Amino acid sequence: MRVLLVGAGGVGSAIARIAARRPFFEAMVVADYDRGRAEAAVAAVGDDRFTAERVDANDRAAVGELLTRHGCDVLLNATDPRFVMPLFEAARGAGANYVDMAMSLSHPHPERPHEECGVKLGDDQFAQADDWEKAGALALVGMGVEPGLSDVFARHAADELFDTIEEIGVRDGANLTVDGYDFAPSFSIWTTIEECLNPPVVHEAGRGWFTTAPFSEPEVFDFPEGIGPVECVNVEHEEVLLIPRWIDAGRVTFKYGLGTEFIETLRTLHLLGLDRTEPVTVPGPDGPVAVSPRDVVAACLPDPATLGERMHGKTCAGTWVRGTKDGAPREVYLYHVVDNQWSMAEYGSQAVVWQTAINPVVALELLATSAWTGSGVLGPEAFPARPFLDLLTEYGSPWGMREQ
Amino acid sequence: MRVLLVGAGGVGSAIARIAARRPFFEAMVVADYDRGRAEAAVAAVGDDRFTAERVDANDRAAVGELLTRHGCDVLLNATDPRFVMPLFEAARGAGANYVDMAMSLSHPHPERPHEECGVKLGDDQFAQADDWEKAGALALVGMGVEPGLSDVFARHAADELFDTIEEIGVRDGANLTVDGYDFAPSFSIWTTIEECLNPPVVHEAGRGWFTTAPFSEPEVFDFPEGIGPVECVNVEHEEVLLIPRWIDAGRVTFKYGLGTEFIETLRTLHLLGLDRTEPVTVPGPDGPVAVSPRDVVAACLPDPATLGERMHGKTCAGTWVRGTKDGAPREVYLYHVVDNQWSMAEYGSQAVVWQTAINPVVALELLATSAWTGSGVLGPEAFPARPFLDLLTEYGSPWGMREQ
Repeated sequence: MRVLLVGAGGVGSAIARIAARRPFFEAMVVADYDRGRAEAAVAAVGDDRFTAERVDANDRAAVGELLTRHGCDVLLNATDPRFVMPLFEAARGAGANYVDMAMSLSHPHPERPHEECGVKLGDDQFAQADDWEKAGALALVGMGVEPGLSDVFARHAADELFDTIEEIGVRDGANLTVDGYDFAPSFSIWTTIEECLNPPVVHEAGRGWFTTAPFSEPEVFDFPEGIGPVECVNVEHEEVLLIPRWIDAGRVTFKYGLGTEFIETLRTLHLLGLDRTEPVTVPGPDGPVAVSPRDVVAACLPDPATLGERMHGKTCAGTWVRGTKDGAPREVYLYHVVDNQWSMAEYGSQAVVWQTAINPVVALELLATSAWTGSGVLGPEAFPARPFLDLLTEYGSPWGMREQ
Repeated sequence: MRVLLVGAGGVGSAIARIAARRPFFEAMVVADYDRGRAEAAVAAVGDDRFTAERVDANDRAAVGELLTRHGCDVLLNATDPRFVMPLFEAARGAGANYVDMAMSLSHPHPERPHEECGVKLGDDQFAQADDWEKAGALALVGMGVEPGLSDVFARHAADELFDTIEEIGVRDGANLTVDGYDFAPSFSIWTTIEECLNPPVVHEAGRGWFTTAPFSEPEVFDFPEGIGPVECVNVEHEEVLLIPRWIDAGRVTFKYGLGTEFIETLRTLHLLGLDRTEPVTVPGPDGPVAVSPRDVVAACLPDPATLGERMHGKTCAGTWVRGTKDGAPREVYLYHVVDNQWSMAEYGSQAVVWQTAINPVVALELLATSAWTGSGVLGPEAFPARPFLDLLTEYGSPWGMREQ
C-alpha cells in the first residue's frame, strides 16, 4: 500500500508517528499547504518510507498529480472538513481509494433549521456513491475516533451484543485541563464552533433524520476510568448520519460532553455574532480590513496541537447502546480512553489528536491486509467490527465495555 | 455665558437640544472632529445662539484659539475620556472655566492591580488643582449623570438626610431592551469593556482607596419605577474618587447593574482574550492582517447610538446611602429614572445618552446665575445640592427618593 496523507497538522503528524511503527505500507507521502509542517512530520518519524510534499488541498489537479506521481493507491484526508469534497473528488479522479475522518459539510434547512435537515453531513459524498461502486473503488468515510471507532462499536453491539436495539447514543467526554490557561479547548475551536452551533441531527426509526435547536436534550453522562459525570448535549455529528444506513436502531444520537462552562462560552460567541465566518470590517494599521470573526476567536486562543505538554487528564470516546439480548433488557457502554500523559510519553501527541489519528491507521492496515474489503462510499459500520477492535488492542490501545 | 461644547456625538447633540430650551447663555459653539456632526447638531436645534466648528480635541492650541475667537468663558467637554487632559489644559490656557462628564484615565498598579491603586481616575486633573485655584478659575469635573447627579445626591444626603454616613453606594441599573437583537448593549461596548475590566476602586475611611478584582462584591439591587432587581458588581467609576474628597462616609462604592448575562458575557470575552486591544494576526483576503480583538467584538454588534427607536424601557441612576439621623438608623436611595419612550418623543435622544446630557446643562445654568460659584478642580459634591435638584425638576425631569 502507498498512502498520500494530506494534512500535517496535529492529527496528520500523529498518524505518521503511529503508522511508522507498522510494516503494512510501502510508502507514505505527507503533504501540507505549509511544506515546513509536512517536513517536520516526516523528520519526526525518521523512516525512509515517508516523504514530504507541498499541496493545496483545494486544487484537485495538483492532488491528482501527487497521487499519480507517487503511485499512491489511497488518499488519507487529515485536513479540516472544508477540504473533504476536493480531496474526495481528486482521489476518485486519480483512481485511488479514499479515507477521511469527517464528512462533507451540512447546510441548515433554509426555513426550519431546528426541525428539518437541509443538506446533511456526507450528503455530497453519498451522492457520488454509484461512481465509486461502479469503479470498484472504496471511499471509507468518517474513519477517525468519532465518527469512526464509535461506528465500529455500534456494529460490534449489533452483531454480538444485542438482538434488538432501542437506542444508540455516541457519548464523548473528557476531564482534560491545561496548565496556565483558564480556557484552552483541546480541539480546533473553529471546528468545535461549526459542530456545536449547527443544528444537531437525530435519527428515529419511522421518522428518519430531523434536527433540533443547538445544545438540546442535555444529560449528565458518567464516563469511565475516573473521568466521571459530564454534562452532554446533542451535537451535529457524522455517526447519526452513518449508523442508521447499516444498523437497525430505534433512535441514534450524538452527545458531546462539552461541560456547562464550554456550552455557555459557545452560546455567548453565538449571541455576539463572533461565531460568524462572513467578514466584518474593522480598523487596521493601514486602513479598514475585512476579517472573519471566527478566525479572530481562533487567533486569540492557543493552538490545541501545541498544548500536549501542559495538558492533564483523559479523553473518552464511546457508544452507549440500549436494547435486548435473549429476551432480556441490556444496556452497555463501549468505550476507548486515552490518558494524555501516556500519549505524550509514548507518541509525543496530545490525547485528543492521538485518539483521532490511531483509527484511520488501523483501518488502512485492515484494507492493506484485505481483512476489510468493499467498494462504494461506506462508513466504518459497513465492515466487520471484530478485526478492527482486535487490531486496535494489538496497537497497544485497548477498548473497554461497561454493562450498565 | 458663552459656551464651547466639544463633541457632537450622542451626548453632545442631546446637550444642544436640552440647552436650546433655556435662556441662560448667549452663545454655544458646537465643535467636533467631524464638522458634519457639529453642523447636524446645530441644525437640529434651529437656534441662532448655536454655531458649528471643526476642531481636533487633541490640539490644545486649536481649542484655545476657538475659545478666544468666540469669547467663550466655559468649555464643556462631551468627548470620550481620552481627550480629557488636552481639553482641560486648553481651557486653563485660554482662561476659560471647564466642565466634563468623565475624568482623566487611570492606570492599574503594575504589580498588585487587584489590591492597590496605580494612577487613579482624575489624578492627572487634581494634580493641577492649585493652578486653577490661584487663577480663580473653575474646573467642574465629573458633571454628567454618573458621575454627576449621583454626586449631587450624595451631597444632598450628607447635608439634609443624615447625621452620620456608614456607606454611600452609587447604583446604576436599567431594563432597556432593543427590538430585533438578542444582545445589544445600550452604551459603547468598547468603553464598557474598558470600565468593567479595569480593577474596580473602593474607598474606606481609615484605609483610603484600594482596588479589587473585576466584578467583585456582586449584589442584587432592587431598582425603582418597575425596573426591579438587577445583579450589580463593583466597577471603576469616578464617584468613588470624588465623594470621599468632600463627604465623610465609612465606605464608598460604585456598582453597575450589568445583569448576570452581561457580566458572564464580559467574563467570557476576557477568558477568550477577545477584550484585548493588542492586535492578533488573522487571514485576510489579501494575506494575513493584524486586528484588535476588541474592535472585532464592537464590529459584530450594532452601534448603540442608532438604537433609540428600537429601544424600550427605563434607565436609573442613583445613590444609596446608609447611616443615622437623629440617633436612628436610616437608609435611602436617591434616584433619577428616564424612560426611553419619553426621551425619544420629547428630545429625539435615547435614554442613556439624554440622562447623561441634562446634568451638565443644569450645572452651566447654576454657574451662569451664580447659584454655584467656586474655583479650583471641584466635583459636583463641592456645591450645594438643593439648587441643582430643584432646577433639574424645573427642567421637567424630576428625581425621587425611596426610604428603605
